[in-house]
Amino acid sequence: MIIDVHGHYTTAPKALEEWRNRQIAGIADAAVRPKASELRISDDELRESIEHNQLAQMRARNIDLTVFSPRASFMAHHIGDFAVSATWASICNELCHRVSLLFPDHFVGAAMLPQSPGVDTKSCVAELERCVTEYGFVGINLNPDPSGGHWTSPPLSDRYWYPIYEKMVEYDIPAMVHVSTSCNACFHTTGAHYLNADTTAFMQLLTSDLFTDFPTLKVVIPHGGGAVPYHWGRFRGLAQAMDRPKLAEWLGRNVYFDTCVYHQPGIDLLTQVIPAGNILFASEMIGAVRGIDPETGFHFDDTKRYIDAAGHLSGAARLAIYEGNARAVFSRLDAALRAKAM
Amino acid sequence: MIIDVHGHYTTAPKALEEWRNRQIAGIADAAVRPKASELRISDDELRESIEHNQLAQMRARNIDLTVFSPRASFMAHHIGDFAVSATWASICNELCHRVSLLFPDHFVGAAMLPQSPGVDTKSCVAELERCVTEYGFVGINLNPDPSGGHWTSPPLSDRYWYPIYEKMVEYDIPAMVHVSTSCNACFHTTGAHYLNADTTAFMQLLTSDLFTDFPTLKVVIPHGGGAVPYHWGRFRGLAQAMDRPKLAEWLGRNVYFDTCVYHQPGIDLLTQVIPAGNILFASEMIGAVRGIDPETGFHFDDTKRYIDAAGHLSGAARLAIYEGNARAVFSRLDAALRAKAM
Repeated sequence: MIIDVHGHYTTAPKALEEWRNRQIAGIADAAVRPKASELRISDDELRESIEHNQLAQMRARNIDLTVFSPRASFMAHHIGDFAVSATWASICNELCHRVSLLFPDHFVGAAMLPQSPGVDTKSCVAELERCVTEYGFVGINLNPDPSGGHWTSPPLSDRYWYPIYEKMVEYDIPAMVHVSTSCNACFHTTGAHYLNADTTAFMQLLTSDLFTDFPTLKVVIPHGGGAVPYHWGRFRGLAQAMDRPKLAEWLGRNVYFDTCVYHQPGIDLLTQVIPAGNILFASEMIGAVRGIDPETGFHFDDTKRYIDAAGHLSGAARLAIYEGNARAVFSRLDAALRAKAM
Repeated sequence: MIIDVHGHYTTAPKALEEWRNRQIAGIADAAVRPKASELRISDDELRESIEHNQLAQMRARNIDLTVFSPRASFMAHHIGDFAVSATWASICNELCHRVSLLFPDHFVGAAMLPQSPGVDTKSCVAELERCVTEYGFVGINLNPDPSGGHWTSPPLSDRYWYPIYEKMVEYDIPAMVHVSTSCNACFHTTGAHYLNADTTAFMQLLTSDLFTDFPTLKVVIPHGGGAVPYHWGRFRGLAQAMDRPKLAEWLGRNVYFDTCVYHQPGIDLLTQVIPAGNILFASEMIGAVRGIDPETGFHFDDTKRYIDAAGHLSGAARLAIYEGNARAVFSRLDAALRAKAM
């Protein structure tokens, strides 16, 4: 089976965005603040938004299952305070849960957290617990920069983040490190901020002893690891100069890269330099890059084609990338699949 | 001939750092503020610092000439005010000039600018003029984030930067977009901030019409273009979605990438996806990654080996990368070489 570990609900019915706009307006003017209960989206609307979009593409590409989380660019943790983020996260996670109930063989949830800049991360634990225990979610997205491009939070190695890590370890769920919209004019959201955050997070982890404190913590760096695999020699050299372990060994069972790299040479490089055991198939479809590549005639984000065409990969390596690694990293997903004899 | 367009004076005599430390102490305490004239470094000291370091490596690697600028991580434009930056830039540029006088066949200068966060960039023009007209410098380093990791300046497309661009066009000199030390704990300087800045700058340029206002402006994105070539499909897709020109055409005679990518797969990818006419040979030696790669037995930053081994490159392409493109981009260097019948 083929598992895509990186999908967001980018195609939610328009009512969601309208509710959010009212919520944002309500930050300044309590009179227009909407209640969560005022958002009404029917199962038919949800079904339609998925059937003709993500699920149609999954069928066309032979992807069986997607780990599905709220739209990353809409998390916008920098907007409002914790209460705003908490209500918004709760709504977005519930919608992903409902999608997973409507299409139980094709979608499983991963949670967005109600992060807010400067707020104790203990405040995120209740929503995380709810998503895992009530919704059966199998992972979380962790935003290393809830300020939206101002980078005012401490590095991921800081104890600030430990309450989240403690829950992750308790539930054995991984975190995908994923920022949201940039509100800093310097950073284009999907062209710079996303990739920068991936590189930044990798280096924060590499220069810390986080995995000594949390030996079973699992972190997924999306978008093919940002700039990291392309500069693997640079990172190997920096690690060597800092007396860190050899990079390929240091990744261990802690650090994984997804395959959201949208051309053949990029996937070739990724799968050449990163051990196959640390690569998770993903496409972030339907996401940042939705067009068709005129050079191939296929969608830029149809990453399965590139992996299939990466001739140096063994059958075993490809199997690990498509399924085995995902089941190891998302152990609760593996358990759920086994319960269905899958 | 082989021209390395990216070298910094990272091996300057210790007296320079000591003077700088006194300058920094003098920000808070005028009594200990040193005069520029108190820094004394002899020609012999300069000669020795180069002979046994950069020049020895250049000879070992068959590199003829390096475009040489002050140490990037020491620019630290976030420290002090404009006057502090102005004195510091003047001292650092003068040292590079003296190196170029001592080794005229092997080093030519590129200027650091006296940038300071929030200060009008007109203030940088006098030092730029001095370096070009008095020192024969052939390029500049432009820091897109003089705040040192807080990204408080406007994007490179903003008119804030135009006074520098106007001078660049007048003198026909290129800018290498190069940040300095990160003072934001989120960003490791050479493992994250440098690469992030490269990706960020590329996207700032791509989403603007800067080259409509300055059709002959030339920008070099160092460190192999940050994350850009690895994600070339992503950037092609984003450009297509934004109705921008085809990326390879958009680069034109405006945007160039250097070859500071420290392993074979990275250079293979760079030279596969970026037109050879937009690639400039460089190593940033002696710089961020100084060790020997145990996988090859050679220095990580010995980038010439990777380019020589990139089998898909034609002889003409390799010649362009090693010399032709550098002479086209650094036209004042070309003129100086021609004057020496080189």
